[in-house]
Amino acid sequence: MKMDRIEKQLNFVLEIDKMKQIGRQTYISDGTRKENDAEHSWHLAVMCMVLAEHANGELDMAKTMAMVLIHDIVEIDAGDTYAYDPKGNESKKERETAAADRIFSILPRDQAVYFRELWEEFERSDTAEARFAHSIDNLQPLLLNDRTNGKSWREHDVAKSSPEKRNRTTAEGSKLLGQVAGALIQKNADAGNLRGE
Amino acid sequence: MKMDRIEKQLNFVLEIDKMKQIGRQTYISDGTRKENDAEHSWHLAVMCMVLAEHANGELDMAKTMAMVLIHDIVEIDAGDTYAYDPKGNESKKERETAAADRIFSILPRDQAVYFRELWEEFERSDTAEARFAHSIDNLQPLLLNDRTNGKSWREHDVAKSSPEKRNRTTAEGSKLLGQVAGALIQKNADAGNLRGE
Repeated sequence: MKMDRIEKQLNFVLEIDKMKQIGRQTYISDGTRKENDAEHSWHLAVMCMVLAEHANGELDMAKTMAMVLIHDIVEIDAGDTYAYDPKGNESKKERETAAADRIFSILPRDQAVYFRELWEEFERSDTAEARFAHSIDNLQPLLLNDRTNGKSWREHDVAKSSPEKRNRTTAEGSKLLGQVAGALIQKNADAGNLRGE
Repeated sequence: MKMDRIEKQLNFVLEIDKMKQIGRQTYISDGTRKENDAEHSWHLAVMCMVLAEHANGELDMAKTMAMVLIHDIVEIDAGDTYAYDPKGNESKKERETAAADRIFSILPRDQAVYFRELWEEFERSDTAEARFAHSIDNLQPLLLNDRTNGKSWREHDVAKSSPEKRNRTTAEGSKLLGQVAGALIQKNADAGNLRGE
């Protein structure tokens, strides 16, 4: 029984290794290459710890970290949808739900339910933890774009209004981080790293 | 004051982005390339959640995850020392202490102290959390080596005694995971993926 549980758990651990090959559009800080989902999720989890004091509400830290660590796991099947790709975002929900069905069910039943609900909570963004997780998930690519002189934004000819629109949710998790993000967007629009409309 | 704290915190967040470029010797599960420290740390944190029930002692989950997420940060300056490199391991402690001094002190003072102590607790391995973190840190490369038919072990002509020696600490954090790891080592020795001495 116990070995049956461990076998399922280790199958899941090996399955999610594929996150290391799901590419994102954001460049790492020296601009040499784009980051992948595993690196991104690690970065978010450390950011949660370091920046938790700025959250609008009280956080269950283990839950918040767990949420950011697994929030992109569905992209193993569904792929990374660029935040500013309207067409890709139309079919995103359906693709990601099917992926969640498959991937989380590799785990023992109780854990499959736990992680699936954690992922759905992140998607609904209706708790302090989920809202803060979104703040961090929004801020991290802004920091990397700022550090690389808007390398990814320039590649995709992104208008200032795109991160601004996405950034509305940042302040819902952390008023202060929403301000920091807003200032970064303005700075990069002024520098021509974001198209000015 | 608050902006001064945030500035230090964001400097740390950008500094540790370098973890994405610290290469390890272990191949990712499809064997196409070696993993880096950021990916490895993410993998360990998810493993902590999934496998926590097998720990020998009660765990503070947020603390355990925090520990594995930052345990390799010193390698930004000190580099990754291959577990089975005796020469590199002689100077490891000194190099990593200097790195910890520099990197954690980028944070506001209270957080610098907190993360530094967390890293030292992992190094001393004298709590249930630190012992379990080591179990997971030992098991993860075994899983990936097993999945890739010992690709990294073969490259380094690693003898069975090397992971066996390292694996003594695995059972200290989790008796069951120690057994799983021992079985993986034996299986790979039998298959010729580890040199038989």
